[in-house]
Amino acid sequence: MLIPERLLMGPGPSNPHPDVTQALAAPLVGHLDPYFLQVMDETMSNLRVVFGTDNHHTIPMSATGSGGLETIMLNMLEPGDEAVVGIIGYFGHRLAAMASKAGATVRTLEEDLGQVIDPGRIQAELEKKPAKLVAVVHAETSTGACQPLEEIGKIAHDHGALFVVDCVTSLAGMPVDVDKTGIDAAGSCSQKCIGSPPGLGPVTFGPKAIEASNNRRRTPPTWYFDLSLLFQYWGESDGAKDRVFHHTAPVASIYAFHRALQLILEEGLENRYQRHRDAHCHLVSGLEKLGLSLFTPEAHRLPMLNVVNIPDAIDDVRVRKTLLDRGIEISAGFGPLQGKTWRIGLMGYNADRKRIDILLGELEEVLKEARK
Amino acid sequence: MLIPERLLMGPGPSNPHPDVTQALAAPLVGHLDPYFLQVMDETMSNLRVVFGTDNHHTIPMSATGSGGLETIMLNMLEPGDEAVVGIIGYFGHRLAAMASKAGATVRTLEEDLGQVIDPGRIQAELEKKPAKLVAVVHAETSTGACQPLEEIGKIAHDHGALFVVDCVTSLAGMPVDVDKTGIDAAGSCSQKCIGSPPGLGPVTFGPKAIEASNNRRRTPPTWYFDLSLLFQYWGESDGAKDRVFHHTAPVASIYAFHRALQLILEEGLENRYQRHRDAHCHLVSGLEKLGLSLFTPEAHRLPMLNVVNIPDAIDDVRVRKTLLDRGIEISAGFGPLQGKTWRIGLMGYNADRKRIDILLGELEEVLKEARK
Repeated sequence: MLIPERLLMGPGPSNPHPDVTQALAAPLVGHLDPYFLQVMDETMSNLRVVFGTDNHHTIPMSATGSGGLETIMLNMLEPGDEAVVGIIGYFGHRLAAMASKAGATVRTLEEDLGQVIDPGRIQAELEKKPAKLVAVVHAETSTGACQPLEEIGKIAHDHGALFVVDCVTSLAGMPVDVDKTGIDAAGSCSQKCIGSPPGLGPVTFGPKAIEASNNRRRTPPTWYFDLSLLFQYWGESDGAKDRVFHHTAPVASIYAFHRALQLILEEGLENRYQRHRDAHCHLVSGLEKLGLSLFTPEAHRLPMLNVVNIPDAIDDVRVRKTLLDRGIEISAGFGPLQGKTWRIGLMGYNADRKRIDILLGELEEVLKEARK
Repeated sequence: MLIPERLLMGPGPSNPHPDVTQALAAPLVGHLDPYFLQVMDETMSNLRVVFGTDNHHTIPMSATGSGGLETIMLNMLEPGDEAVVGIIGYFGHRLAAMASKAGATVRTLEEDLGQVIDPGRIQAELEKKPAKLVAVVHAETSTGACQPLEEIGKIAHDHGALFVVDCVTSLAGMPVDVDKTGIDAAGSCSQKCIGSPPGLGPVTFGPKAIEASNNRRRTPPTWYFDLSLLFQYWGESDGAKDRVFHHTAPVASIYAFHRALQLILEEGLENRYQRHRDAHCHLVSGLEKLGLSLFTPEAHRLPMLNVVNIPDAIDDVRVRKTLLDRGIEISAGFGPLQGKTWRIGLMGYNADRKRIDILLGELEEVLKEARK
């Protein structure tokens, strides 16, 4: 196979650390092997640190990030329930679609692209009519905007609602702090700031979320994503001895994910967040020198996902194609922003000055050639 | 990481071919990279050959084999539908549970462990009351029994029902022949006879299954497993140009799966089936020399999954633990057969005389020490 080598500076997958790739290719063991059960326990324990939570129910789902988020919605919601979803871009729409698939009546609060939801709007909506669940996207990958969480969490709880957060893009690249922020359930992915290949959907469920799951009127319309079945395998308590087979765990993916979590803890969360902020500043200052500006207002900018305005005189597709031919992936704008913006991801291993300099150097040359 | 090296002779994962492991660790590209889109197209095309089908809708789901089977049930069935499920062991119960989760009224036909369903029972059940779907497990991993398919498929079609098959354990180790057998939807896994790591759920849907999915009264209660959304990404026709993002594909897992499929086609399906049959005969004759017999009646035996009676004088757990300490995994019996049987898998790369001889040699020594 002649697989091209890419510097992956889109919205993920990002390039994994070489140690993670090595772990991926390690010898397989069975999914009930004592060694693998130890890997599972360590994975849960380290994932809790990354999420910033004491929640026992913290695992990588055997599905991508979207599958993790769907696990949350299908277990928290059922027909007859009300949900309020804040929408600041595509991934908010996706959360609303998943809540709706779970059978809930979904009320959406939408903001202009690049903006974030004012907590007062959530408050007004819940005062008008209560809801079982409030969900927002922390780091909106389609607009590069960061939704502040803490106040919305407080409002949700004051109105008896669960607070659910999509932290697919933010986790391990900026603070999520599940317990401190008051998040009841959160879902992320393996391939962005965690720095593993795509394929796993890390999720965490707090006591109120587990209670909601246990108090359902009907079991969820899923066998694969059913929390009560999943934790018979992952263990209902720490160091559980009796594991009941559910599905065959994706052993190799979990090896890689386990190693990626170790690398995060070795680096230290604060150092890692700082590295992502530094990378962002380095990119923005380099882009400015090339005459490029960011779409997202400065107050809301994410460090790991940068949405860049495409100058009028520049051919979007030609720039991306030429960069890809030179071995660098940046991504198209999403939805209404397609053709108007690029998305440049600085995630995990790639939140690195030298790698950003490679991109900036190539981009400078390509821009010169790509005047329309 | 001190990962133990195991010869995996349980019910899967099996040891992948070294080329597959190498593909797993290949450099990542983005999930919309032109190179990856080509890998996706080749994967669909080669998977069709392995399933024995012309079905366009043939993909590896981004979930394990169970997730693939759930995709079938959630898209084919909805509340108000009737399903008939044949049960010859644990995995039949699982199919019934999934059909029930999808909201269908499920009628089960159960057989004694080791036996298979008589097609006449399916016929009588459908004559009593029609059903939208008939589902059976082809290779029942808990009992080692092979359920003949063709006659049941014909009966299902004569009564206007879809024929759904769980071929998790059989695919690529013995003929499944989706089109010839008259299967409308089938689901398998990546880690058994296909010989890739666990994590993907290959599925195929024929025209009648797609029609049933399109004619639903309501959309399925899932976003992640929704066929209509999935094929916007995988392509509604061969060589589709417009791919709409759904979820981020598990690129590394698909690399490995893609390579595993290539190896199957290089070997040839008939040669591969013959290799699995030869391996089975070699194992059985070796076991007989050790005084061990098979649980499953000879008429129903699978080649790739052998359920072995544990002699009264032998300590089940001690044998398995000692073998594992020596680097060989065989598996415990399942459910009612736990403690009474072992399960020995000969799948993909491990359907090999030399590897079986390693197991037989070690087993001989271990049995001597494990008299109760």
